[in-house]
Amino acid sequence: MYHYDQLFDFTKSVFLKMGCSEHDSTIIAEVFLAAELRDHASHGMIRIKDYYELWKAGRINTQPHVVIVHESPSTAVVDGDNAVGMVSARRSMEIAIEKAKNAGTGWVATRNSNHFGIAGYYAMMALKSDMIGICLTNANPLVAPTFSISRMMGTNPIAVAIPALRQPPFIADFATTPIARGKLAVSEKKGEKVPFGYVQDKDGLPSDDPTILKRGGSMLTLGGDRVHGSHKGYCLSSIVDIFSAVFSGANFGPFVPPSVAYLPVLDKKVGAGTGHFFGAMRIDAFQPSADFKSKMDEWIETFRTAKPAKGQDKVLIPGDPEREAEGRNIRDGINLVPGIKDDLVTIASELGINFE
Amino acid sequence: MYHYDQLFDFTKSVFLKMGCSEHDSTIIAEVFLAAELRDHASHGMIRIKDYYELWKAGRINTQPHVVIVHESPSTAVVDGDNAVGMVSARRSMEIAIEKAKNAGTGWVATRNSNHFGIAGYYAMMALKSDMIGICLTNANPLVAPTFSISRMMGTNPIAVAIPALRQPPFIADFATTPIARGKLAVSEKKGEKVPFGYVQDKDGLPSDDPTILKRGGSMLTLGGDRVHGSHKGYCLSSIVDIFSAVFSGANFGPFVPPSVAYLPVLDKKVGAGTGHFFGAMRIDAFQPSADFKSKMDEWIETFRTAKPAKGQDKVLIPGDPEREAEGRNIRDGINLVPGIKDDLVTIASELGINFE
Repeated sequence: MYHYDQLFDFTKSVFLKMGCSEHDSTIIAEVFLAAELRDHASHGMIRIKDYYELWKAGRINTQPHVVIVHESPSTAVVDGDNAVGMVSARRSMEIAIEKAKNAGTGWVATRNSNHFGIAGYYAMMALKSDMIGICLTNANPLVAPTFSISRMMGTNPIAVAIPALRQPPFIADFATTPIARGKLAVSEKKGEKVPFGYVQDKDGLPSDDPTILKRGGSMLTLGGDRVHGSHKGYCLSSIVDIFSAVFSGANFGPFVPPSVAYLPVLDKKVGAGTGHFFGAMRIDAFQPSADFKSKMDEWIETFRTAKPAKGQDKVLIPGDPEREAEGRNIRDGINLVPGIKDDLVTIASELGINFE
Repeated sequence: MYHYDQLFDFTKSVFLKMGCSEHDSTIIAEVFLAAELRDHASHGMIRIKDYYELWKAGRINTQPHVVIVHESPSTAVVDGDNAVGMVSARRSMEIAIEKAKNAGTGWVATRNSNHFGIAGYYAMMALKSDMIGICLTNANPLVAPTFSISRMMGTNPIAVAIPALRQPPFIADFATTPIARGKLAVSEKKGEKVPFGYVQDKDGLPSDDPTILKRGGSMLTLGGDRVHGSHKGYCLSSIVDIFSAVFSGANFGPFVPPSVAYLPVLDKKVGAGTGHFFGAMRIDAFQPSADFKSKMDEWIETFRTAKPAKGQDKVLIPGDPEREAEGRNIRDGINLVPGIKDDLVTIASELGINFE
């Protein structure tokens, strides 16, 4: 078990040593730890190694100049200058919030960025300003469109954060695939099969093998197969990709650059780096703030008191499980994924800092 | 087989007779026929009876004053004055497009409206102005959140239209459930079972019975069950509901008013009428228009040439099937759903017009 502060300070030190500024290192550590607290360990400390290896390979810029390259009253396109994703994403969401202050809403498409951790972090930034936050990003291609066997899309998540009054905020943060990729790795380690509907083999036939991606297989979109609406998951994933990459001028679909150094840089580029999309909407651009939030309370209370199915004790509101995890992980400490301690110790020793 | 013009003129006459203006009746007929052309017959002529019955019951206003009740540079809340949904929706999308001309983007939440036909129609309106169009709406509650047996949400669709240059536009228009409700009715008529993953029984147990909604059952969200990501479908459907109804002050979730006269007006109201949400984003608020559209061509061509799975001949782009249907239905005529002709003849005779 690790205390929040210990992991935060360590993460910050790693990025400081990699040349990031005090400001940027703090943001990066915040996002990594937000993932750990919210039980999204797949986007937490386990990823530090990926960023470190990209940096060693000279594939990521730790002293970036993140700039607006195009704008209108309610929009901007941001060039992330190949920054650590958290740095360009955080700045982009700040710009969306600034735009919303004047125009009612703010929308930012970001190019030339990298993997940015959990999308929910940026959506949640809007809450402090009495705004609704939205965040989308594309990601490494692993997912096949309906009727295809080509890996064309990432798990392309959607995050939306909406404030309430007495109730905690509504926070949705989900991949547009039935599962996150990390779940396949977990099943593989356990030697288990996965349910049908997650992956297909190289010919597009249903598979329950969590290792199938290593043999030409691909992940399926939300819905799983055509009969169960996989074409809707394909639509969603496409929308996320287009908003993140075509709007911004980043690489789309199969051309999204790898977020790990052990995969080579792709030969073909159709844009700059990875792409994200951010939205901020001022509550009072629609309703007086107090009215809106008290209506959200009513929405949340209505759904929370929906009748549970047999064998279930309650109906959850998006954000409930993560908030419960946050409380527990702050109180009891954070359990690192087995095996990553050694990686962190190695990184620490190479950088001349300490981890134990 | 009916010719487009014949059905258009008839539909327009029906709404003129119900007291709608020339302008409004034209719009309404356009939306009904757009559904027929695009092979979404479930939202086409079959629904005229529902509107007619609502009008006879005095539950819909055919001479509405659709007005902006709140606004910022990039947003507006519109009160639909209990209009036929197409009328308030069309005006709302026009306002979103006007806002976008000045602010880069425009976002309109609409309350006090009614069922508006296909969401895709309003999203596509943006294309003519070199904009991306977005449309969401809530709908009659039939769908249960994950872990619940209560019907809390509609099939809450999402439509997004994105222009390209030489390629036809990307047009996604889909319910946030595995299937549209109409599919259950079709299976019931044929005496067939439906695949598991569409509906559950009154206790929340899996069901393959298309008539289960009549005995306390409910529809499932996209994903089907928790293992296959139904909680993500629940997130999506919730977001559509909140954007459509909490943003606007309409009825949300289980309080959305019935779109048919044979169901009674609900006792409890938490807002006004049905809610919608519209977005318009100027392409050149992000990229020079020609660059953006030629990048969309590249996106579309990349995905269209993805490798098909065994037994499939091609990978589709969202909007392809509907566009093919449009061509066919304009050329060969429109086949009405069996049985609705009698309804239309009755309506025609009651209104003193002609249908055959």
